[in-house]
Amino acid sequence: MREDRSAARGREEQPGAGSGSESGPGRTNVKLRRLLPLTLVLTIAGSVHAGEGMWMPEQVPLFQEQLAALGMTVDAKSFSDLTGFPMGAVISLGGCTASFVSPKGLVVTNHHCAFGAVQYNSTPERDLTVNGFLAKSIDEELPAAPGSKVWVTTKIDDVTEHLRGKIDATITGKKRHDVLEERTKALVAECERPGGVRCRVASYFEGAKYLRITQMEIRDVRLVYAPAEKVGDFGGEIDNFMWPRHTGDFSFYRAYVGRDGKPADFSKDNVPFEPAQFLKVSTGEISDGDLVIVAGYPGRTSRHVTADEYKIAEELYYPRSIEHYRTVASILAAESAKSDAARIRLASRSEANSNGLKRFEGTLAGMKKGNLLARKRTEEAELKAWIAADPARAKRYGGALEEVAKLDARKWATQERDFLAGWLGRSSTLLSQATTISRLAIERGKKDALREPGYQERDWPRIRAASERAQRSLDVDVDKLLLAHFLKLAVSLPEGQRIQTVDKALLATGETTADAQVTALIERLFTNTKLADKTARAAMLEETPAQQRARRDAMLDFGREIEAEQFGYSLAGDEIQGSMAIAKAKYMDAILAMRGGKVYPDANGTLRVTFGTLEGYNPRDGVRYNSQTTIDGVLAKNTGVDPFNSPAALLEAARAGRTAGYVDAELGALPVNFLTNCDTTGGNSGSPTLNRKGELCGLLFDGNYESIASDWVFVPEVARSIHVDSRYMLWVMDYVDGAHNLMREMGFEPKSSPK
Amino acid sequence: MREDRSAARGREEQPGAGSGSESGPGRTNVKLRRLLPLTLVLTIAGSVHAGEGMWMPEQVPLFQEQLAALGMTVDAKSFSDLTGFPMGAVISLGGCTASFVSPKGLVVTNHHCAFGAVQYNSTPERDLTVNGFLAKSIDEELPAAPGSKVWVTTKIDDVTEHLRGKIDATITGKKRHDVLEERTKALVAECERPGGVRCRVASYFEGAKYLRITQMEIRDVRLVYAPAEKVGDFGGEIDNFMWPRHTGDFSFYRAYVGRDGKPADFSKDNVPFEPAQFLKVSTGEISDGDLVIVAGYPGRTSRHVTADEYKIAEELYYPRSIEHYRTVASILAAESAKSDAARIRLASRSEANSNGLKRFEGTLAGMKKGNLLARKRTEEAELKAWIAADPARAKRYGGALEEVAKLDARKWATQERDFLAGWLGRSSTLLSQATTISRLAIERGKKDALREPGYQERDWPRIRAASERAQRSLDVDVDKLLLAHFLKLAVSLPEGQRIQTVDKALLATGETTADAQVTALIERLFTNTKLADKTARAAMLEETPAQQRARRDAMLDFGREIEAEQFGYSLAGDEIQGSMAIAKAKYMDAILAMRGGKVYPDANGTLRVTFGTLEGYNPRDGVRYNSQTTIDGVLAKNTGVDPFNSPAALLEAARAGRTAGYVDAELGALPVNFLTNCDTTGGNSGSPTLNRKGELCGLLFDGNYESIASDWVFVPEVARSIHVDSRYMLWVMDYVDGAHNLMREMGFEPKSSPK
Repeated sequence: MREDRSAARGREEQPGAGSGSESGPGRTNVKLRRLLPLTLVLTIAGSVHAGEGMWMPEQVPLFQEQLAALGMTVDAKSFSDLTGFPMGAVISLGGCTASFVSPKGLVVTNHHCAFGAVQYNSTPERDLTVNGFLAKSIDEELPAAPGSKVWVTTKIDDVTEHLRGKIDATITGKKRHDVLEERTKALVAECERPGGVRCRVASYFEGAKYLRITQMEIRDVRLVYAPAEKVGDFGGEIDNFMWPRHTGDFSFYRAYVGRDGKPADFSKDNVPFEPAQFLKVSTGEISDGDLVIVAGYPGRTSRHVTADEYKIAEELYYPRSIEHYRTVASILAAESAKSDAARIRLASRSEANSNGLKRFEGTLAGMKKGNLLARKRTEEAELKAWIAADPARAKRYGGALEEVAKLDARKWATQERDFLAGWLGRSSTLLSQATTISRLAIERGKKDALREPGYQERDWPRIRAASERAQRSLDVDVDKLLLAHFLKLAVSLPEGQRIQTVDKALLATGETTADAQVTALIERLFTNTKLADKTARAAMLEETPAQQRARRDAMLDFGREIEAEQFGYSLAGDEIQGSMAIAKAKYMDAILAMRGGKVYPDANGTLRVTFGTLEGYNPRDGVRYNSQTTIDGVLAKNTGVDPFNSPAALLEAARAGRTAGYVDAELGALPVNFLTNCDTTGGNSGSPTLNRKGELCGLLFDGNYESIASDWVFVPEVARSIHVDSRYMLWVMDYVDGAHNLMREMGFEPKSSPK
Repeated sequence: MREDRSAARGREEQPGAGSGSESGPGRTNVKLRRLLPLTLVLTIAGSVHAGEGMWMPEQVPLFQEQLAALGMTVDAKSFSDLTGFPMGAVISLGGCTASFVSPKGLVVTNHHCAFGAVQYNSTPERDLTVNGFLAKSIDEELPAAPGSKVWVTTKIDDVTEHLRGKIDATITGKKRHDVLEERTKALVAECERPGGVRCRVASYFEGAKYLRITQMEIRDVRLVYAPAEKVGDFGGEIDNFMWPRHTGDFSFYRAYVGRDGKPADFSKDNVPFEPAQFLKVSTGEISDGDLVIVAGYPGRTSRHVTADEYKIAEELYYPRSIEHYRTVASILAAESAKSDAARIRLASRSEANSNGLKRFEGTLAGMKKGNLLARKRTEEAELKAWIAADPARAKRYGGALEEVAKLDARKWATQERDFLAGWLGRSSTLLSQATTISRLAIERGKKDALREPGYQERDWPRIRAASERAQRSLDVDVDKLLLAHFLKLAVSLPEGQRIQTVDKALLATGETTADAQVTALIERLFTNTKLADKTARAAMLEETPAQQRARRDAMLDFGREIEAEQFGYSLAGDEIQGSMAIAKAKYMDAILAMRGGKVYPDANGTLRVTFGTLEGYNPRDGVRYNSQTTIDGVLAKNTGVDPFNSPAALLEAARAGRTAGYVDAELGALPVNFLTNCDTTGGNSGSPTLNRKGELCGLLFDGNYESIASDWVFVPEVARSIHVDSRYMLWVMDYVDGAHNLMREMGFEPKSSPK
């Protein structure tokens, strides 16, 4: 039930959210991503509203006046210095954000981001998941789950000229794509050569700009403190996305390095990392209208797609996905009901699926309610008018939108096939493993620099770990049902958009009806495979294509053919993408010019800054959601029944009014969570929320339900980020959990009587 | 489905809410009321909070300064003049309140209060219930449902001295009860002798004060205008008790009298009544904090019960009632599911039952959440301390509470029996008819002045009408199931609290097990009765006891015996009540003295005034309910599916922004409903809400869910009344329904283009 929960909740980055020819931490399964017809890319930036914008650090100085007017005492320019204050303290956990809060490498992030480490260290005899964990001294700190990393961004180079500038404009299509990919890989390889760092070339403004990001990769991460689950996850799934909220979603790690100060694998000899910067935690008051700044690693937004691209998402991609999520949900539910073992095995998949469903439904509802298509059309018309208003502009930017539309039309000619193939490929764990194993074998035969992104040597440990992890949730019965469902849908694909491999395999069964063909194919694939065997699968991962073929493993062979066919699609896709890179960059250039550079790029998993204020909203007529909640709400929600079962120590302290030192004078109570109009998305989970002095006054941990569709268009009236107040965190540490050692490390004298 | 709905919703008076030796409009079935162990009477008034208090008109001048400070321009003293402005315009419909709004007897009240008239005038060919009704001229006005009355309070005499003062203090128990009852009846008879009026002697402060109220009884009432059901009842059961609310709960009647200006039965020759006073409808702005005054006829509250009496309600009466309501609900639901005919037949009973359940559950939840018992205990301790602080007080008021407790103990000795007998008597329609018919026959044999209250000649038409009405919802199968259920519960009553008639009847079946006895008794009662026959029943109503006996009707005989036994209980109850009248009056005298007279009596169905301000509230941590809603909320709630299906004309006008003349500048939209901290309860439905100038700025139509427990203790933080804004009413009349004739009658020129 608990496994992988952190991968499916809050504002951590969603798996598979990446796109384009990028590489770096948190990127997975490039091929599968290619199957999505809607790697929807940029075009138009709307006017910027209060709170809107995930700005690149280098852009923050543009808002110097505005920030100063809101009382900011930190120089806006300092945000563009990545090793200075405060940005030097903001780090990535890969999918989540975190920050240093002591000179000894103490890291604070969300409870849901560190929960994997809590699970990993739990045993039936010592279950930390319910009651949490506190290392009373540094010796008691526990290694986080394998693969846990801390990435500290140390350098950003502008490589636009190298990538975009030095290619002849006449080089288009696949050729351009290949050139870009090759240069990207070379830039990354060069950067990573000294070791201890992870590099990535990221595309901004859909290829109008390229930056190379260097990150120090700390590999020894330890769990220091997590409050009880029903502090860190109070309200659980019921309150997920909801406001008013009362969750103490915080936990602490510590980053360790070798005695030489360089990243090292876990060792007893390692020492706490001494970061260049760390944040001071605030106990100051904050209230409605106060400035806050959120720095973090938002994963993916699609604000710059064209109106037509947006329309396809709203009319095809979302409704169709919701349909598929529902089918998957009903299959998982039926199987889970059969036994406790099945329920436990499928829990994380069910939860991830239902979370995806909730997210897709919320997005679609928000799209329709906000009338987002009309907003996109208005934005696009504005840009067209701006271009048309001046012959010089028309010469420079004209035709870009038409070119994008032409390329989109080519892409969408096979959208039914591409969309279904994506779901089919993910439907069965074994099939998905088969495709990965086959592709890896092929790529391994090439020189590293020529390998497909995601299959280079640097990616192999991640692929192996994912294959091993897949065993926990593997359920062959579910695999069969899901694959059968999507195979049947493939039978109904229109002419010209058929999946050849599927057609061939079904025909080969010798059966005459579609249903009988699918049944026979499923029977053959699952009877003649060793892929469900963890050891066999691990062995296959290391084999050559010839060795794999010699196994005559039906599922592996089917996966190889599917993968080869899809690889073919992706080559055709590369052809479109190469030309699209030119068209979209040109279009984005126009937008940047129109807005005088005050345009933020879509989120792409890189470090960003957003600023806004504490602000409630009106969820419906007659109702105001205030921007802050208090401990009174925790007591009111507490029923004693999961997920509203606060720990006894918390209830006792709260009911006795033992809150001295952390009470908000205006609220007259201990504050718990707050709401801001900051612009965040998945990946921002755990982001430090800074007050106007640059102190950590909270941690971002979620967005409200109304903000889900903001990945497409930011709706300032209702899109809100949800944060845990630093005073609630300190109060829990002080009065509930007695984490006085950590408080002192952060420079606080506990207020409660000594325990 | 629709019948009797108005009797079960909103702030109209609940059937059976009366108590004590009172008589007058809206009083029903005195005997059944006596069976309730908890005719909980007065003791302690808490301190008065903003908004709290259902003041007698004569008390309003006490608040002259406070009201003037809130900007009231009407002289507070004028409220004690019942024929002056504004009280002369405030009238009772019996269960609901209304007011005159034109010199030609035009009456405005709630849609749910006038809905019976809409139903009555509907036929399959011309169904007014859905689309509403508008008389375009006075000739088109339709007679309201039979029995519809308008009562105009014309005079209030203080008869305390006559009732309380002239009885020797040594006369106690049943003797005192009988003297009080006899004098009350004589005062009423004397008052009603001239004809055309209805009189009542009402007890205030639980017998510390008695007032005789004279009301002109207008018998020709006509339906003038009701908006579409989904304006008047937008949100239906789902929004009942809820906020934010968007209901246009208003309708119009007209009062008619004979050409001589005196009340007369319906006749084409009758003419519109010309009231002494009428209210001007306001189009002015109102907003948070603005003073409003509500005048109306609240039915019943129990704020002055002792803490022990309150405790019995919370611990026994409410939980046990909820249990019974649920059982009844499940039986009704199962039977309703059997056929459409059964569903329709039982709809009004099901709705009334589920409404009762919701109200009892809401009250119990509010009692616990508000920790009302602790509040009562604190109040009581305060009073005790005040009495004890001064020997003169101790001499005058001491011992009253102890005397009340002693009398309560006697009453509660049979509370299990009395409580169950009440439910048993109401469980079966036939049994309930049988008891009424038997008692009526007995009382008819007496002189009118000696008849039991509720069975005097003045009550006969009401009893006949109720018997006739009962046919519509009669379902013999349900009757059997419900009676069987309560008979089985009677088997488990403790020794000393047995219902003798039931024991005897069960034994007489000759069966040996309780279940078999109940089955046999039910079989016998329902096989050998003509009570289900409307004609036979009507005949029985007019028969003597001997004629009734000669029928050998099993159910009628059983009802007679049950009734006789219960009448015996009530005689014992009268004994207690007679002495209680002395003890409670003494106790209330103490409270009045302690508070310097600034105490309001419990609601008793008489004219009252409450004042407060527009004020939202915090339903839970982090959420604020604003005090006003707008047309935007109607559009947002409108799904097109019942009960959120606004009429097309309304949607069209609202969407096109055709609201000129009625927009609230501060809200920037057409206001719909508003919330005040006024203290109201059932019976207040339709009450005019006056602004500081005494103009009608709204109509009260409901209380919020959190206010339900306020019948016991007013909780100022969350208890709110819900009103429809007069501007919404006028907008619907103007732009949606084209009720321009009525607008002009009220002195408004319509703002919409002529239709």
